[in-house]
Amino acid sequence: MQSPSKNYHTSNPEVTSAIDRDAPSHPVAQGLDEDDYFRSHAAPSYLSEVEAQVDQFVEHHIKTGKRIVLVTSGGTTVPLENNTVRFIDNFSAGTRGATSAEYFLENGYAVIFLHREFSLLPYSRHYSHTTNCFLDYMVEKDDKVEINPKIADEMLVVLRKYTQAKSSMSLLPIPFTTVNQYLYTLRSISEILKKIEDKALFYLAAAVSDFFLPSSRLPKHKIQAQPSGKLIVDLEAVPKFLRRLVDSWAPQAMIVSFKLETDNSILIKKATEALRRYHHQLVIGNLLQTRKKEVVFVTPNGDESWIRLTDDQDSSNAEIESIIIPAVIQEHDKWTVKWKAEKEPSN
Amino acid sequence: MQSPSKNYHTSNPEVTSAIDRDAPSHPVAQGLDEDDYFRSHAAPSYLSEVEAQVDQFVEHHIKTGKRIVLVTSGGTTVPLENNTVRFIDNFSAGTRGATSAEYFLENGYAVIFLHREFSLLPYSRHYSHTTNCFLDYMVEKDDKVEINPKIADEMLVVLRKYTQAKSSMSLLPIPFTTVNQYLYTLRSISEILKKIEDKALFYLAAAVSDFFLPSSRLPKHKIQAQPSGKLIVDLEAVPKFLRRLVDSWAPQAMIVSFKLETDNSILIKKATEALRRYHHQLVIGNLLQTRKKEVVFVTPNGDESWIRLTDDQDSSNAEIESIIIPAVIQEHDKWTVKWKAEKEPSN
Repeated sequence: MQSPSKNYHTSNPEVTSAIDRDAPSHPVAQGLDEDDYFRSHAAPSYLSEVEAQVDQFVEHHIKTGKRIVLVTSGGTTVPLENNTVRFIDNFSAGTRGATSAEYFLENGYAVIFLHREFSLLPYSRHYSHTTNCFLDYMVEKDDKVEINPKIADEMLVVLRKYTQAKSSMSLLPIPFTTVNQYLYTLRSISEILKKIEDKALFYLAAAVSDFFLPSSRLPKHKIQAQPSGKLIVDLEAVPKFLRRLVDSWAPQAMIVSFKLETDNSILIKKATEALRRYHHQLVIGNLLQTRKKEVVFVTPNGDESWIRLTDDQDSSNAEIESIIIPAVIQEHDKWTVKWKAEKEPSN
Repeated sequence: MQSPSKNYHTSNPEVTSAIDRDAPSHPVAQGLDEDDYFRSHAAPSYLSEVEAQVDQFVEHHIKTGKRIVLVTSGGTTVPLENNTVRFIDNFSAGTRGATSAEYFLENGYAVIFLHREFSLLPYSRHYSHTTNCFLDYMVEKDDKVEINPKIADEMLVVLRKYTQAKSSMSLLPIPFTTVNQYLYTLRSISEILKKIEDKALFYLAAAVSDFFLPSSRLPKHKIQAQPSGKLIVDLEAVPKFLRRLVDSWAPQAMIVSFKLETDNSILIKKATEALRRYHHQLVIGNLLQTRKKEVVFVTPNGDESWIRLTDDQDSSNAEIESIIIPAVIQEHDKWTVKWKAEKEPSN
């Protein structure tokens, strides 16, 4: 009995019920919300360590002249009550973020990879979170461990890219788990990236919680011991910090957000709304059902531009991020031209 | 800039606040609760596939004569509303379960490893969920991928044990994600394990959700779109199926449960209460702070027996499961003797 072949994953959400349309729209965070949030929630204890790493990374790439993209990836958690063993989570393996990071690296960007701890990572993603476990890639030969020869050639290609990213100091992985860690780290990184102005790109693919439990209410908000033994959890909307990012944290950077829907008929509308609310440069819309085959770029001037894998590309297992990233970079080029024109008006 | 050394994990809970003592005690599930639960919640679509695998595994080990242990490991999730992208989760990496499974295998048991998908696995655990990513274990040499020579010898030892477990068909990994998947799979496996009577051991190390949202309420229980934009989640206690397991699903098997606390003064009391409620054979008590160094065995006759790593063992990084498992097996031996004596009274 070899490990039996397994034809199912237990962790995939159902497309038909994955998005709840009854959720109210959240208010856009204003200056006051930002102050309130960061005043009433403690920074992660390790934040200065992250800031030092990011600072060093950015200084290095000011010298190399590379553009820097911040890729966010994976889902944030919301701890419940004062009980940090139990938390609300968002389903996201981190596939879009980890895959995109690779194509940014291949296209000459330096990448800060702000990811949910233990979610998929660039390059290593090819060998984790699969039905194989780590040791399934290994064999013993002549009293030594070897990579299974069936996959060794392919792994060499991936390893070389990874080694190249490391040796050129072009990939900086930074983890988060909670939404609070995410928000603090995002703000810190943004403020450091200000230094490189329009050479910074934000590619916000993480699944950030909509609701959270304010820390001010943690001490008094314990489980309500009702006679029935029920648990009632009363959550508040997470302020939408994207507007603050655009206005204040990183006003010169190019910012890309994602909109995931299940209903094609409202995708463009939702993407356009997001641009109107947050004033950023690009929304990449996608449907849960087809997100690996097609996405739509929506920009503030009203353009909708679909990007699709051809049938040939699809059948040869091409990744749509190999097309998305060059198209995002084109938008970044345009942004840079526009920004420079605004900064230095022709005289 | 090599991957910067990282001195923190973002995903560990705080010991001081990890367990909420305000949570009410849950009712023990009775026959009716069981009927209600399984009647009102659909079985996972893949359950028959799992049952076929387990059946084949058990039939095989009826021939080899091995005892079989079901090790459960990792946390269960509770999907919220009809929105399966968002769920409540229990923090658990699966360390206790994955490590214990290895020592059961080394002590001659066959292991059904019922685990949270993508949590730690026996043997592969040594190389996953660490600060290293997969490719950090690889190097290129002479145009070939090789295991980093610094760790290759150690990996060979682990790979041999893993290969041995696979080639002797002694390890069957079965995944779950939601608490519903867990409960259905646990029941199915229990009923198949009835065949081997007292040769079955249940080692229940998974962190099972206390609260869930009954599927009967999913359609009508959507997010309440309050003017404030708040989310209210109203959960019910998960029926405690351990009693049903003991009474009805696997009455001849030896059953071990875990009790995790943060307060030493109530650990024994809580363990004793669990034995009284569920009528099983052994509770292994442990404190979050010291769980890798000491545990206590509590049995229905009132015995408390502490198992601790010696200072020498601790400083040489011995794993406490290397002592726990032989001690559990002794209890299993006693159970078998007792069971046989009850079944065949001396005449």
